[in-house]
Amino acid sequence: MADFVLGIDIGGTNTKFGLVDKKGKVSEEGSFPTHAKEKIEIFLAELKKATLPILENKSIVGVGVGAPNVNHFDGTIQQAANITWGDNVPLKKLIHDLFDLPVVLTNDANAAALGEMKYGGAQGMKDFVVFTLGTGLGSGFVVNGEIVHGHSGLAGEIGHVSVNPDGRYCGCGRRGCLETYVSATGIKKTVFKMMADYTRPSVLRDVSYNDMTAEMITKAARDHDYIAIKAFEYTGQIFGQKLADTVVHTSPEAIFLFGGLVNAGDYLLDPANYYMEKFMFKPFKKSVKLIPSSLMEKNAAVLGAAALGWEEFDIK
Amino acid sequence: MADFVLGIDIGGTNTKFGLVDKKGKVSEEGSFPTHAKEKIEIFLAELKKATLPILENKSIVGVGVGAPNVNHFDGTIQQAANITWGDNVPLKKLIHDLFDLPVVLTNDANAAALGEMKYGGAQGMKDFVVFTLGTGLGSGFVVNGEIVHGHSGLAGEIGHVSVNPDGRYCGCGRRGCLETYVSATGIKKTVFKMMADYTRPSVLRDVSYNDMTAEMITKAARDHDYIAIKAFEYTGQIFGQKLADTVVHTSPEAIFLFGGLVNAGDYLLDPANYYMEKFMFKPFKKSVKLIPSSLMEKNAAVLGAAALGWEEFDIK
Repeated sequence: MADFVLGIDIGGTNTKFGLVDKKGKVSEEGSFPTHAKEKIEIFLAELKKATLPILENKSIVGVGVGAPNVNHFDGTIQQAANITWGDNVPLKKLIHDLFDLPVVLTNDANAAALGEMKYGGAQGMKDFVVFTLGTGLGSGFVVNGEIVHGHSGLAGEIGHVSVNPDGRYCGCGRRGCLETYVSATGIKKTVFKMMADYTRPSVLRDVSYNDMTAEMITKAARDHDYIAIKAFEYTGQIFGQKLADTVVHTSPEAIFLFGGLVNAGDYLLDPANYYMEKFMFKPFKKSVKLIPSSLMEKNAAVLGAAALGWEEFDIK
Repeated sequence: MADFVLGIDIGGTNTKFGLVDKKGKVSEEGSFPTHAKEKIEIFLAELKKATLPILENKSIVGVGVGAPNVNHFDGTIQQAANITWGDNVPLKKLIHDLFDLPVVLTNDANAAALGEMKYGGAQGMKDFVVFTLGTGLGSGFVVNGEIVHGHSGLAGEIGHVSVNPDGRYCGCGRRGCLETYVSATGIKKTVFKMMADYTRPSVLRDVSYNDMTAEMITKAARDHDYIAIKAFEYTGQIFGQKLADTVVHTSPEAIFLFGGLVNAGDYLLDPANYYMEKFMFKPFKKSVKLIPSSLMEKNAAVLGAAALGWEEFDIK
């Protein structure tokens, strides 16, 4: 009987999972809403319910989990901006108690970076960064061929570099963090700014804030909607400027973009690339590739969390 | 007869050198003006003249050099902001030709980081950053116990993150780079801004721009000069805000500050610490020590460049 790791990617909006074999083949995929603003017990009950049918009669060697703001060293979620289960959630222990299986927990963006390195476009690269553009903005750094956890175990929280200290309020309690501009939530906020600033008609003017999704904005941009295109330009400009700052830190060979917002393709990538190069310190110009993850269809974070599981549990 | 490495630290204003034995003991130190805005031949002639007397009758195993904007991989200086010897200076080859000895060349801040790790306050640390605050602002990153060179070989150029895209003109051709605010040159510029903004008397009002030094500003601050103290506060605020952004990249255990400006002690450190903590993403608060280099009196960059030399040449 084949062995599997259960890979889980907990996002601010949805949680995805799948069974991953040793070669990185994903089967029995699924997803459910994270209920990030309710009690963690609801999440745990949903997780159990959703995964139970696929675990039956399978040989599961363990569970690999990616989640935002994970402290790699102690297996807790610490003060996540978009998940309000508490300041210090012992997620590794809770998931262990749920399944009675070995659990490894890491930052969702670090998991995506590991997936990209093992099975995706970063194979053979020693220095790269993965950005996950979902409800928030996550990032995972690889330096000298290794995931960067840093001294705190929390390295790579680029979603919380400052764009403008007087800017938008962030879930983290501060103002003007990058993820309030560059994420699915950020571009939605920007659409509302653009609808205020400009007079042009837009299909987006018929949608409430709570109903609007990044997919709608992407679709509107593809249909040449002025407001949607302006929102992508604004998002790409801020992203590009901040990427130029990130590049002078660790000088990556490539920056991989992952998450729903990346489906907008060139509407996001063109301005991001333009402003990254425009603001880049001269010796680094044209040194970095800004590209979509090659695992967009597969979920790099589920794969990466499972890959970490295979590393930790496969002691035969 | 004892063996030595000739360690050289090339700064935007002065070049320092010393003979360093295998245990990190420095002897026969000296310095001379870098002549960074003149032809490189002048620098090379001065270097030869200054070091010739100390090299006579000594067993020298090689030369270790730290300089700004060095590409670690090919031994060139690339488009340095404060040294205008050319866009692509083959410094390693030129110094090899000068001494006919093996040469190793690295970024001055990386050299300082190596010095701090081998002989200074970073002994035993796996993740830390060294900032060199001289004519410009250099930085060297250590992640997972290794110096970060990045894909380009130029990683760690934090002097060129953007404080304000409409801000002060930088030697690199852009505007508002961190080093135009936080460096010996930067604080001098800030003193001139403060003399314009405020009406208070100051000893600094008797000194021309070209005559003013960071030492004068430090001395004035110690004598309770309002303009000088305001200049340190302004410098420390910008530095602290940007340090908070740097910390979320690689999550260092400590940030070591090195260079003349650090002699101002708490005038710089207090506001830098205050604003770093104020702007820090919550999970990282109080996770980082901001401290002066423990090699301030010794020159971490000369030591570090020599240490790199010892690693490379000592093949017996």
